Amino acid sequence: MLREVGRGRLFMGRLERGDDLLAALTKVCESNGVKMGRIEAIGAVESATVGFYDQDLKVYEYIEIAEPMELLALLGNISTLDGETMVHAHVTLGDDAGGHCRGGHLALNTVVFACEYMIEELTGEELVRGPDEATGLSLWVD
Amino acid sequence: MLREVGRGRLFMGRLERGDDLLAALTKVCESNGVKMGRIEAIGAVESATVGFYDQDLKVYEYIEIAEPMELLALLGNISTLDGETMVHAHVTLGDDAGGHCRGGHLALNTVVFACEYMIEELTGEELVRGPDEATGLSLWVD
Amino acid sequence: MLREVGRGRLFMGRLERGDDLLAALTKVCESNGVKMGRIEAIGAVESATVGFYDQDLKVYEYIEIAEPMELLALLGNISTLDGETMVHAHVTLGDDAGGHCRGGHLALNTVVFACEYMIEELTGEELVRGPDEATGLSLWVD
Repeated sequence: MLREVGRGRLFMGRLERGDDLLAALTKVCESNGVKMGRIEAIGAVESATVGFYDQDLKVYEYIEIAEPMELLALLGNISTLDGETMVHAHVTLGDDAGGHCRGGHLALNTVVFACEYMIEELTGEELVRGPDEATGLSLWVD
Repeated sequence: MLREVGRGRLFMGRLERGDDLLAALTKVCESNGVKMGRIEAIGAVESATVGFYDQDLKVYEYIEIAEPMELLALLGNISTLDGETMVHAHVTLGDDAGGHCRGGHLALNTVVFACEYMIEELTGEELVRGPDEATGLSLWVD
Repeated sequence: MLREVGRGRLFMGRLERGDDLLAALTKVCESNGVKMGRIEAIGAVESATVGFYDQDLKVYEYIEIAEPMELLALLGNISTLDGETMVHAHVTLGDDAGGHCRGGHLALNTVVFACEYMIEELTGEELVRGPDEATGLSLWVD
């Protein structure tokens, strides 16, 4: 599945301390009508919850990281699932004990300390997620 | 070495379960005639092979990661080496035991579970790799 | 804080072995008059210094990594602080013992082995950093 897309608006912004990282980024997209795009961010979190997808059981396991971490990289995309804007992002985090890294699929309950993001809106035919049998995930359909 | 480049086409796509990550991304570039660009992706892999360049011996050592990992970040560029399209990408991966991260230079034999990518084509004078004495690597030449 | 920005110039380049990663990227921005933008890179370093921000004490602790590491992802932005161009970047690094990752806030004294970067200039009203009480950091002001 491959789609040529156009360039839309570009946004630079930051979140506030205490924001829920995934919820806040989703709200930025919704508030500005961004339904397709890419997103990136750096910053720090007070704590994090990340998912690891069990490829056999086809369910997400959630990992709680109950300590401050640097947000080394958030990379993701924006598309729609069941008509709702969905930010799909993965995060890499670094700890204070040598900068060792942990990360996963960004889930709710990741608390922002500081976050500087960029969102690039993409234009063209809507990019829609639907069920994918091979993985059990909601992936982009043609 | 620094070059101002122009903006070309933008592609959003996903790979299929079982694809070889590097080979499949390279093929997408070749099939669409993308000879210069940037690439990013998130997803998950069934297993991975990543390179670590020994800066003294000037050879890549390869690390095999024989377990499912989340693909937290793939970041790379597209240019040419000996006339062939070359995707140069580095990956950060997260495991299921706490989300601990491993990664390196993306090599062949990295098996896709799911992968959502964006390729941004760049335009202008071709960006070509050639031998670099200081590192032993094939780097961009002026 | 959210700002819509425009698209400026795009640069692809590489640094030389021995360069200071943060200083060299900052100099590229300064030399080319890039005051607002995004930046990304992959490559390898001979050694690194990364910061971890202590969210309670509100100071950076610095972590020295005195060995060669692959540069898996450098993600950052460009804005100004006290009239000076400031590159704010976070790095994820992978070691030679299994590709295990460490990273943090990119600081001076990170020595380039090889580095391929892309800088995207953004246009519009200057993005300026100022003191943020909630975090003690210099963050973007409205």
